[in-house]
Amino acid sequence: MKVDKITELFTQELKVVNMGLETFADNLTELGVEAQQVEWRPPAGGDPEVLALFDRLEANTTLDIDAANAEAVSRIQQGKPTLVDIGIASEVIPGMHKKLILHAGPPVEWQDMAGPLRGAVIGGLIYEGLAKDAAEAEKLAASGEIEFDPCHHHDAVGPMAGVVTASMPVWIVENQTYGNRAFCTLNEGLGKVLRYGAYSKEVIDRLNWMAEELAPILRKALELRGPIDIKNIIAQMLQMGDEGHNRLRAGTSLMIRELAPYLVMLDEPKEKLSRILAFMHENDHFTLNITMPACKSVIDAARDIEGSSLIVAMARNGTEFGIRISGLGDRWFTGPASVVDGLYLPGFTADDAARDIGDSVITETTGIGGFAMAAAPAIVKFVGGTPQDAITFTQRMYDITVAENDTYQIPAMDFRGTPTGIDVRKIVETGTLPAINTGIAHKDPGVGMVGAGLVKPPENCFRDAFAAFVECYTKGATL
Amino acid sequence: MKVDKITELFTQELKVVNMGLETFADNLTELGVEAQQVEWRPPAGGDPEVLALFDRLEANTTLDIDAANAEAVSRIQQGKPTLVDIGIASEVIPGMHKKLILHAGPPVEWQDMAGPLRGAVIGGLIYEGLAKDAAEAEKLAASGEIEFDPCHHHDAVGPMAGVVTASMPVWIVENQTYGNRAFCTLNEGLGKVLRYGAYSKEVIDRLNWMAEELAPILRKALELRGPIDIKNIIAQMLQMGDEGHNRLRAGTSLMIRELAPYLVMLDEPKEKLSRILAFMHENDHFTLNITMPACKSVIDAARDIEGSSLIVAMARNGTEFGIRISGLGDRWFTGPASVVDGLYLPGFTADDAARDIGDSVITETTGIGGFAMAAAPAIVKFVGGTPQDAITFTQRMYDITVAENDTYQIPAMDFRGTPTGIDVRKIVETGTLPAINTGIAHKDPGVGMVGAGLVKPPENCFRDAFAAFVECYTKGATL
Repeated sequence: MKVDKITELFTQELKVVNMGLETFADNLTELGVEAQQVEWRPPAGGDPEVLALFDRLEANTTLDIDAANAEAVSRIQQGKPTLVDIGIASEVIPGMHKKLILHAGPPVEWQDMAGPLRGAVIGGLIYEGLAKDAAEAEKLAASGEIEFDPCHHHDAVGPMAGVVTASMPVWIVENQTYGNRAFCTLNEGLGKVLRYGAYSKEVIDRLNWMAEELAPILRKALELRGPIDIKNIIAQMLQMGDEGHNRLRAGTSLMIRELAPYLVMLDEPKEKLSRILAFMHENDHFTLNITMPACKSVIDAARDIEGSSLIVAMARNGTEFGIRISGLGDRWFTGPASVVDGLYLPGFTADDAARDIGDSVITETTGIGGFAMAAAPAIVKFVGGTPQDAITFTQRMYDITVAENDTYQIPAMDFRGTPTGIDVRKIVETGTLPAINTGIAHKDPGVGMVGAGLVKPPENCFRDAFAAFVECYTKGATL
Repeated sequence: MKVDKITELFTQELKVVNMGLETFADNLTELGVEAQQVEWRPPAGGDPEVLALFDRLEANTTLDIDAANAEAVSRIQQGKPTLVDIGIASEVIPGMHKKLILHAGPPVEWQDMAGPLRGAVIGGLIYEGLAKDAAEAEKLAASGEIEFDPCHHHDAVGPMAGVVTASMPVWIVENQTYGNRAFCTLNEGLGKVLRYGAYSKEVIDRLNWMAEELAPILRKALELRGPIDIKNIIAQMLQMGDEGHNRLRAGTSLMIRELAPYLVMLDEPKEKLSRILAFMHENDHFTLNITMPACKSVIDAARDIEGSSLIVAMARNGTEFGIRISGLGDRWFTGPASVVDGLYLPGFTADDAARDIGDSVITETTGIGGFAMAAAPAIVKFVGGTPQDAITFTQRMYDITVAENDTYQIPAMDFRGTPTGIDVRKIVETGTLPAINTGIAHKDPGVGMVGAGLVKPPENCFRDAFAAFVECYTKGATL
């Protein structure tokens, strides 16, 4: 029987499937034999150390990582981020106090902070009245009297420098399925703003206006209207050319529609109401500071799931890029923050650019932003690409995720759900890194925004996280 | 030399391009000869009468139709539709008076009017106080005392029944390049509304509120803000999932953003302002009545160009579909209004449907709407298609147009300009009919909207227009 099969094989017309080296297939084709070439590369680029880690993981037969990830991604799918209120940071953010400054990304101390984060800290201290100028603020920041902590350690997220101080107003988004909350400051607009490291008088004045006029009035309008379903808003945005991280023109339009009928009902001077509506209208990134805590509130419900290799946080502080894994608790795995590949505002070049910074990559972590790039071809056009590039970006992300979003859909991909739930195993196995859209800050404190573009995170943090995951879940296992 | 060429032909290996009957190519392929089949059909389906018309047209060697069309489409490209004001129909629409009722589509008299148009006329007469109920209105409409005229004869357009009466408020859009203006009533929302033939008390009450509160207040806000560039708004809409005819979610959002900061500045009771903002927010078709006169003001500048075969109006009155040709002055060429292929609201079926009605096809005539379907895949999904179907719809329209729009671009087609400037010659030659999106009214007066879908216009009106074009431009020519 066995011989017959072999005889059969060598006597019939050959149709060859060739994996790996293409020259074998080329030779066959030249000889007139049908040969199908399959692009294949060994997992993890064939790195023996990483392959050993995969072997070790497989040896722990009681661990069902896929089931743990299914549970994690099901929590992501079921999340219902809802905008419920605006509060003052010190009153609503757990552990917030006057001498604590929250910042974007993984932990970093004053002496290691990048220019834009330093600038924002200086601005934050001046805004809080703890320093009267930059020199005093720098001295205070270096004195040890001020505590620094990641936003992520306090249920918060912050775009770019991400600085949150005690008296700043913050959006409150509640995940109505799981009851947890997430916080984010209100968006200041583009250009010379605190989150890009600027701290001039106009920056501080704007922050004061936001705390004294913008936030209290928006809060009243929101109270009158009732909670806003942000999952629905994000789903609509993706049908309207936004990806929720760097393009939010539709999202901001939709938020204005939701709030305007209630804003006008308030007993407030019309000049104030008009200024608020114009402020929202003139800043398409207004809604970024709502999609970010929406994503944070959703993914926080997928944290701390035993055995899950899903990434539950990606964040950068301008010095380091860091990630957290669901099954590995509060640990950060970090690598050096990358240089952004972007376009620059007039008068600036790549030499002016700070490295990758901000918590806004929480959007990618939750399946929108760069992962939904195909929904926002205008962004790729801005950086010189084509709509097909945008689709390719999104398509690649299915290789490193475990599910398709059941609510966030991409029209240009036949309404396919966005790639959701990043599995660190898949990143290490395929070598495909998460696609991230981002803004670019000036490298020096006090300047502000200089451009926008795309960025690749450092590969080592994913490898380190994977190694730690294997270590954690194979204790006592023998090979 | 000639013999040599023939010898060469019959001695070399054959590579055949076959046009027409596929069986010739099939035979060659079977014999191992490389044969490329080209899909080809004779122009105008080989109709000898139409082919004779093309021959006759060619015989007039002094006529340069392409140059005339280039001039017409250049006027379309250069048009700058700008929302400048709101006025009362009798005060701003040329020739408007108390006993004149404007309607959608080509001319039609009371006895030939379709159900929804009759319903809207009844409602219009009640609204004007010329009749106190439907019976009285029908009697008056049939008496000869009321004059009926197409909106198109008065620089106006109207969606669905398109009824405009003397005291209705209308948007005023000015084509700032050419100075001409176009008019359109304000959108009432969906469901039981006058334009779908409903005339109950709620319909008349809403029209009164629109004239007494909505229009005067919007007018003041617009005055405070200054003119709004509608070309820019439409260009943005197409980047945000709208096609400007049946999907206007982005367009309505953008208009709310533009107006809200000025609405709140007015000395008006806040309840009124909130009602207006909520009315716009709850009706995504609000902006249709702005994109329509924008398109009308643009294409009117391309009318009456000697020798141009471009279509400068398509419109339906529920009984007939009619078109006008730039080089043929004020004449209408009509065919029977079609049945719409659509989806129905709960409780209604195709048996309830009126035939195709409305001036909204002015959007397609000017290169958006169905011609920009690829920009709005959500519409095709609604009627059961795929995003690829939407792209196919738009792609076909390039076969019957003379240019690509230089401002309105489609992201999913690599930002290609929308197909713009419909050439009646190309429709007759290819047999490809314009793609039109539309709403569906109930066939009886007084009911309202029952669905939405896609519709094919009647082929004969394009043939008739082409025959008249040939007749007009070949007088005295000999064959």
